[in-house]
Amino acid sequence: MKMSKLYTPTLREMPSEAEISSHKLLLRSGMMRKLVSGVYSYLPLGYRVIRKIENIVREEMDRAGSQELLMSAIQPKEIWEASGRWDNFGAEMFRLKDRNERDFCLGPTHEEYFTNLIKDEVRSYKQLPLNLYQIQTKYRDEKRPRFGLIRSREFIMKDAYSFDKDEEGMKVAYKEMWEAYEKVFTRLKLKFKIVQGDSGTMGGNESHEFMAMSEVGESLVAYCEHCDYAATDEKAQVIYKVSNDTDDEKEMEKVHTPEITTIEDLVEFFDTEESKFGKALVYKAAGETVVAIIPGDRELNETKLCNYLKIPEHELELADEETIIDITGANKGFTGPVNLKKEVKLIVDSRITKMKNLVVGGNETDYHLKNVNYSRDFTGEVAEDLLLVKEEDICPKCGEILSMDRGIEVGNIFQLGTKYSDSLGAKFLDENGKEHPFVMGSYGIGVSRSMAAIVEQYHDEDGIAWPLVVAPYHVIITVINIKNQEQMDLAEKLYKTLEEIGLEVLLDDRNERAGVKFKDRDLIGIPIRITVGKRANENIVEYSIRGREEKIEVETEKTLDLIRGEFIKEGLNITRV
Amino acid sequence: MKMSKLYTPTLREMPSEAEISSHKLLLRSGMMRKLVSGVYSYLPLGYRVIRKIENIVREEMDRAGSQELLMSAIQPKEIWEASGRWDNFGAEMFRLKDRNERDFCLGPTHEEYFTNLIKDEVRSYKQLPLNLYQIQTKYRDEKRPRFGLIRSREFIMKDAYSFDKDEEGMKVAYKEMWEAYEKVFTRLKLKFKIVQGDSGTMGGNESHEFMAMSEVGESLVAYCEHCDYAATDEKAQVIYKVSNDTDDEKEMEKVHTPEITTIEDLVEFFDTEESKFGKALVYKAAGETVVAIIPGDRELNETKLCNYLKIPEHELELADEETIIDITGANKGFTGPVNLKKEVKLIVDSRITKMKNLVVGGNETDYHLKNVNYSRDFTGEVAEDLLLVKEEDICPKCGEILSMDRGIEVGNIFQLGTKYSDSLGAKFLDENGKEHPFVMGSYGIGVSRSMAAIVEQYHDEDGIAWPLVVAPYHVIITVINIKNQEQMDLAEKLYKTLEEIGLEVLLDDRNERAGVKFKDRDLIGIPIRITVGKRANENIVEYSIRGREEKIEVETEKTLDLIRGEFIKEGLNITRV
Repeated sequence: MKMSKLYTPTLREMPSEAEISSHKLLLRSGMMRKLVSGVYSYLPLGYRVIRKIENIVREEMDRAGSQELLMSAIQPKEIWEASGRWDNFGAEMFRLKDRNERDFCLGPTHEEYFTNLIKDEVRSYKQLPLNLYQIQTKYRDEKRPRFGLIRSREFIMKDAYSFDKDEEGMKVAYKEMWEAYEKVFTRLKLKFKIVQGDSGTMGGNESHEFMAMSEVGESLVAYCEHCDYAATDEKAQVIYKVSNDTDDEKEMEKVHTPEITTIEDLVEFFDTEESKFGKALVYKAAGETVVAIIPGDRELNETKLCNYLKIPEHELELADEETIIDITGANKGFTGPVNLKKEVKLIVDSRITKMKNLVVGGNETDYHLKNVNYSRDFTGEVAEDLLLVKEEDICPKCGEILSMDRGIEVGNIFQLGTKYSDSLGAKFLDENGKEHPFVMGSYGIGVSRSMAAIVEQYHDEDGIAWPLVVAPYHVIITVINIKNQEQMDLAEKLYKTLEEIGLEVLLDDRNERAGVKFKDRDLIGIPIRITVGKRANENIVEYSIRGREEKIEVETEKTLDLIRGEFIKEGLNITRV
Repeated sequence: MKMSKLYTPTLREMPSEAEISSHKLLLRSGMMRKLVSGVYSYLPLGYRVIRKIENIVREEMDRAGSQELLMSAIQPKEIWEASGRWDNFGAEMFRLKDRNERDFCLGPTHEEYFTNLIKDEVRSYKQLPLNLYQIQTKYRDEKRPRFGLIRSREFIMKDAYSFDKDEEGMKVAYKEMWEAYEKVFTRLKLKFKIVQGDSGTMGGNESHEFMAMSEVGESLVAYCEHCDYAATDEKAQVIYKVSNDTDDEKEMEKVHTPEITTIEDLVEFFDTEESKFGKALVYKAAGETVVAIIPGDRELNETKLCNYLKIPEHELELADEETIIDITGANKGFTGPVNLKKEVKLIVDSRITKMKNLVVGGNETDYHLKNVNYSRDFTGEVAEDLLLVKEEDICPKCGEILSMDRGIEVGNIFQLGTKYSDSLGAKFLDENGKEHPFVMGSYGIGVSRSMAAIVEQYHDEDGIAWPLVVAPYHVIITVINIKNQEQMDLAEKLYKTLEEIGLEVLLDDRNERAGVKFKDRDLIGIPIRITVGKRANENIVEYSIRGREEKIEVETEKTLDLIRGEFIKEGLNITRV
């Protein structure tokens, strides 16, 4: 492709709306454009990357025995009502009506649809296992779309669904997908971790997330460097040691604490540690008021609370001040588990039940209670673990210390079990003619999000540095002076030669200053660079690799060997990357 | 692929809802499934065909210098309001609101969006010409979705848009796309005609449609066998000869015609020919009542009437009886151009103005008027041509006789001019720094519809007979008895050999009777067939081609040459079809 013809509108200015590198660079390099918040178009260079990622995903899915198909993006309400997710998805689901006032959504995912598809068509255990996938545009009306392709409202996803006759079969499928995903992300050159995930609104049991590690990732991953434990912060089990569980219970006391409401102030006032407090959090959970009590030195994990309450996350929100005053009879900052004015659901983290002589809010403005003890002074529903993991927590698997890092969730795999087959009535007949619901799994890869994750891991201050395997073009030939006939002739000849052996080549034949061309070359991040300049008359060109310092001057023909070497190094085949 | 693993749920029964062959066969062969009216999923075999069609389209578009990208499917109301099409599209447009109550549609086409994309990014004539395309799912909420993929509500389309600095440039782009389309449909093995089309709601001037000829096509094509004239029935110019234009004007007479309202009854009553009547049609056109007068022996062309009135077709409908009584003072069947009771827009086909001594409705129940003459007895707005073409009309180009056939519109090309660039303010600077709107063209190919058109042209009573170039697999190996080890071994070995040389092969290893396998083989329409049966022990297999009578028994190795011969005959390369 000649760059004089290529549509890649690069921007000199940094797009003001963009906060993270992938967002900025994909816009600046003309790989994508925003239409409205969270909705993007992929321009020619960007779409080439998308298609390369898709093809890698496709190859590995095919190899794992999954079969590709394509479902519609619009889906009727009925199948979502059957699973209970029409309501569960809340405002995140784009909804519409057709001309006959029938309700549809734009598919945020396709569990219901795939289950509905095979229902009544797959009837026998002999047709199992079955694994189907599609690569498709998905829709989620995010509350706060941000970070470009990381959290967008329209995005490209590969989603797969497995159907098995039993749990064992599902686990085999799960493992196959796990392995296929490892291959995909390895081929995409992503540095990633596989971590235990929370199943959330997907239902089902075990799940894992594939995290491309990145400082700008929205997910926090807790992992152990001493064993293979890794989990999202939403999921990670918190081992919390109570130090004073054998202390004697002292007499409860009311203490005047005027305007002392924050943990910091309380620590100072009572001259003790954060861990001696019982922190109360008031929520509205699906309409109901809930008070959760956790150790004062920890944060509450809202996902765990939702799971405990069995509600979707969008139905949980912190209560407003009015509600707090209503249930405690006191201003905010003085809520505690003892003597609440109204009957509310009180949920207590299991560690609270062991902590002796707690300081808690008094449910009276400007008062706290000290020496409060569970069972003697208050009771509630006990939840095993409501805590958010933090750096240096104890590894629940080996007892060593956990580390934490940020990641971008680029893939996930879920063991769904029979949630969808049960609710949609999708059944098969076993060897004895007995009906059973399919045992299912679902498996997603964020294709457009993977593109962003690659940019996050492969860029510098000058632009993107695509790994060869997904680069929009393999080679860029820059002509320093297009008015110099020798330079143009040599460049054109090389361009032709390289294209003929199956390479994807950009020829920068634009009538621009060399500086502009170099800047754009860095920005769009083509890995292999050949510069045709002054020494064209000697048949000498400059060869370099994006992101590496080294530049060498070589005879034109020599570049072919160098390029072949680069492909071999990356484990790629020139004629079929 | 082994058929024991393949998900292609074939149906023995004919799907009752399907009226035409492509619809029936694509369902029966398990290539697609309906979700709701007009919305389909492509199952593994069908999606392979779709992807092959897409790749042919992609190759020819790339070759013609168009660049692929991908826009979002959801589009904000604002850009459609700017072009005036938010209202124009009517109920055919799927509309939705996001969580912030902002209006969007699901793109039925992308003129506005592409224009908006390049606006402010392409600023100079130096960046022109530019031609961009995408292959994407489109949405039209059809009033009567039918014929499966022929008229569906969600469909796959390739749409391209060209931007030029002047009319001349646009015409070059138009010609390039024309030629690319010829190549696409030729490669797809479709028998097609290129016909003049009506530009309708697209705006602009010239347009052509690529029609895959088929008895079940929804479009009628008028064409001349003596010259290259061809046009859709909506567009075809009607040459209508008035025979009595030099007759003397006789005195107008009122005639009592009790309960005589149809043309047949009138012909009998007045003992004359249909062509002596002036037929009146009453419409509601964008709220206004319109009476059109045309020769009694012809049908009115509603597209031409809409174009004359400059309204979209969904705003035209035949008036109800109440309206007719209101404007004529008479029952239905007695409407005419003379003495209408209310002032309405009266539009007269130009031929009516030359016809002498017409018989027309009297605007009084049970009365007609004879010897009515334009100008003397009534006047109205004169439209050049409101008539619908019919078989044996005169060719407007060479004067010979027109033929008519049905076709499926698989492609269209439009010269848009500046309709969209004007309304969206998309401008560039010319050599002298002066601003001009882009001169645009738009170009569509129905990908999913092309699949249906291919099936219409390539099938028999037993099933589909895919042309090799788009067949989901090239070869099917049928094992007569999978329990016979010799048969299975030979089949597996051949399967491996054929896959290794780059062929796409199905191995029917299912535990089914041979008859079932043969039926399915015919139904799914794989072109090259190899049967491994009794003579496996002699290394002899049966070779045949779908749709051809001939079957030959050959040594297994000989099939490779036969297959190569078939590829060469079809102009295809085995390693890259």
